Amino acid sequence: MSVARVRVACAQIAPTVGDLRGNRILAREAVRQAVATGARFVVLPELVTSGYVLESEEEARSCAEPADGPALRGWAEEAAAGDAVVVGGFCELGADGLLFNSAAVVDSGGVLAVYRKIHLWDREELFFEPGSEPAPVVETSVGRIGVGVCYDLNFPEVVRSLALAGADLVALPANFPLHPRPEGERPIEVTLAMATAHLNRVFLAACDRCGPERGTEWVGGSVICDQLGWVLAGPPAGLGPELVVADCDLARSREKAWNERNDALGDRRPGLYRLGDRAPTA
Amino acid sequence: MSVARVRVACAQIAPTVGDLRGNRILAREAVRQAVATGARFVVLPELVTSGYVLESEEEARSCAEPADGPALRGWAEEAAAGDAVVVGGFCELGADGLLFNSAAVVDSGGVLAVYRKIHLWDREELFFEPGSEPAPVVETSVGRIGVGVCYDLNFPEVVRSLALAGADLVALPANFPLHPRPEGERPIEVTLAMATAHLNRVFLAACDRCGPERGTEWVGGSVICDQLGWVLAGPPAGLGPELVVADCDLARSREKAWNERNDALGDRRPGLYRLGDRAPTA
Repeated sequence: MSVARVRVACAQIAPTVGDLRGNRILAREAVRQAVATGARFVVLPELVTSGYVLESEEEARSCAEPADGPALRGWAEEAAAGDAVVVGGFCELGADGLLFNSAAVVDSGGVLAVYRKIHLWDREELFFEPGSEPAPVVETSVGRIGVGVCYDLNFPEVVRSLALAGADLVALPANFPLHPRPEGERPIEVTLAMATAHLNRVFLAACDRCGPERGTEWVGGSVICDQLGWVLAGPPAGLGPELVVADCDLARSREKAWNERNDALGDRRPGLYRLGDRAPTA
Repeated sequence: MSVARVRVACAQIAPTVGDLRGNRILAREAVRQAVATGARFVVLPELVTSGYVLESEEEARSCAEPADGPALRGWAEEAAAGDAVVVGGFCELGADGLLFNSAAVVDSGGVLAVYRKIHLWDREELFFEPGSEPAPVVETSVGRIGVGVCYDLNFPEVVRSLALAGADLVALPANFPLHPRPEGERPIEVTLAMATAHLNRVFLAACDRCGPERGTEWVGGSVICDQLGWVLAGPPAGLGPELVVADCDLARSREKAWNERNDALGDRRPGLYRLGDRAPTA
């Protein structure tokens, strides 16, 4: 399947922790708005259904729902209005009763794929099982979508794997906690997004959240990078809600050549990397 | 062996293509100057002995020398003045008569290791054999030094491998060709350096060159990043020669924990990456 120019939107919004019903409406509204601006591809933040700073496994469970629950159904219904594809994070109740920090790829027909985050951050391990399947690349009507979640961005192995599997665009629902940074510097997450896009020659759309939650503030680092790593849109200047929008010519992601002799993926020398177990550092 | 605070210098200089004798003096002078400012660790650019924009295999051969030749002996002699360690790029004549784009780690005792660049850029393949050994980590008097060269930075697998092997500081001799970039943006190579340092929690010192050569201009992107990815020094404002200097507390590179639950290397899930062969992208 060929790919074309597509309007991509990251809906940086402010879910409320524990408010399953309110967050459903909020996310659905955000997808509707993005589709109304012509976006064919919409990214929502990580755990947009539940909020992030959960206090207990019980609270997490109280706002978890299965992939075929009402939240994702709502995204699918909004996607239908513009033949759009939505990737967003949700607090998943698995069929086995376990909870996962997941991201779903949804179109008008429903859920195309669910990815369960494989690198859990900090207290997430108190509530969530880590995923046991690689991050996926999903064929959609807008192109091949690779999916990662937040801290996955710290593992270049993830987006490299997605690029090798043919992703045209990598979607990264995120909740980036705010840390101090040197004055005048961009959030490091934006730097990671740019570098990752560049060295894989792949478009990347990271959707962060906003709205302080139980004392945690967020970077508000939603950003869309082109396949050379340059920022097409975002991050928003303020720390509030914003729809970050860019038109992405996804066909560019399939051009991996830097010049007539070099290829971003083809030049790899897997036999000369040592990516197995870690050596002792003490 | 423990590591401590060390002054690191990148000597961004302007070799002249083909001028083996002149470049020897220039590089030696640069190491002397760096050591005089108190640097215990000095990085020189890629191919500093030969220049970069070579025209033919014959020209490359005419300015190649073995690792035990006079150029690297000169670095060792200058290193002795300050018990320093030098990493620099040179046009290597192998014992087998083949040419390599190599980097050497040198101290007062001579050459500790030679790394032959494994990812060749553009016309380099016309003159040089690609290396057939992984990028190394070398025990030195200042700490464990990982080595890569220029385009290796586009392969996160390289520095990840070096970090896994226990590198405290990654040295990257480079010749970054200048490409257009959006106004106000840093060179993408600086972004790659920052991201790479951050996600491996390792210090990184990239030493670029300057001085246009046969129509090719250079980024002048010498930069020293700390283990969180923040820029400690560089890149120089102009495109000229400059000594980029920063004091680096290398012990920080051995702290891989982000918090009490997360570890930059320990959180990896190698079984869930797909870093083998590339899928067809057509």
